[in-house]
Amino acid sequence: MKLLEERIRREGTVIGTEILKVGDFLNQQMDVALFREMGREWRRLYEGVPVTKILTIEASGIGMACLAAEAFDDCPVVFAKKSKTSNLSGGLYTAKVHSFTHNVTNEIMVSRKYLQPEDHVLIVDDFLASGEALRGLISLVEQSGAELAGCAIAIEKCFQSGGDDLRKAGYRIESLAKIRSMSEERGIVFDN
Amino acid sequence: MKLLEERIRREGTVIGTEILKVGDFLNQQMDVALFREMGREWRRLYEGVPVTKILTIEASGIGMACLAAEAFDDCPVVFAKKSKTSNLSGGLYTAKVHSFTHNVTNEIMVSRKYLQPEDHVLIVDDFLASGEALRGLISLVEQSGAELAGCAIAIEKCFQSGGDDLRKAGYRIESLAKIRSMSEERGIVFDN
Repeated sequence: MKLLEERIRREGTVIGTEILKVGDFLNQQMDVALFREMGREWRRLYEGVPVTKILTIEASGIGMACLAAEAFDDCPVVFAKKSKTSNLSGGLYTAKVHSFTHNVTNEIMVSRKYLQPEDHVLIVDDFLASGEALRGLISLVEQSGAELAGCAIAIEKCFQSGGDDLRKAGYRIESLAKIRSMSEERGIVFDN
Repeated sequence: MKLLEERIRREGTVIGTEILKVGDFLNQQMDVALFREMGREWRRLYEGVPVTKILTIEASGIGMACLAAEAFDDCPVVFAKKSKTSNLSGGLYTAKVHSFTHNVTNEIMVSRKYLQPEDHVLIVDDFLASGEALRGLISLVEQSGAELAGCAIAIEKCFQSGGDDLRKAGYRIESLAKIRSMSEERGIVFDN
């Protein structure tokens, strides 16, 4: 998606060859007009695929998931939490997710009542790199017996194997900006 | 706002006389069509007031803040974080916030570059009760030198003093559903 690639090139910051900061428009500060266009693009890519619910993970996935929902007939958006709070009660689906960015293993969780066997779930997230978070979210959907409609990712770091491994395992993943390589000196090379 | 009040009455769960669970449509599971209408109502209430940025706090404020931004000319949405991560760098504004729900004191923070003196900031959050979180968010705005356009709250528990204390201190707060009292036996009484 050219719009997102250009934005990353213009406002993203590459650190070393692994880290891409997009806090100005995709994370701490969010551009909802961009999110709306991303939602429309995912809708176009998943044309004809039934989606009754969007699942994402706190915190930075929530904004784009909510804007994407507008392109998917205002379907409900559910977010998985990274820690148990007193607001979550009743039965939970849980999965372990290791974050290489923060070097911790979190248990992610969602209330059972928000994922039902009759749901067709689209998973939305901002980054796909090692695939750890996405694997955890897929596990939550599979535990519920819901149908996984597919995965909708903003930025995929294709130089890490998460996306390819999951595609080989049969999952459909649509990433709007696929980064083949990046470095502070040579900038970002996108995959087309 | 009748639409929100009716939804709370129909799908909210009152526990004791203090706790209201709205996870089915406002927190873990989010109804974006409702959020869109809430955004339009805030826009109506703040008609003529310049807003260049929306500030909220992770995680459950983010969805409604992003949908509200559509009613405020797609202005950027910034969320304060509750813990420091390696994704935040550079100068930060911070404030201490005690959560009575979870009985912890968090330091909330936002990067300085996302709140500028020329900004007109609308704060959006899901609940107002003791006012702790809102006071923290207001402090972040004041530290930045930005203009505080006002506060936009989904549900105010008027039987706690946070809202009244802040109004007496001169802050403008617009809450869409104001709960005067609630109990498991008698249900919810809204303030009009």
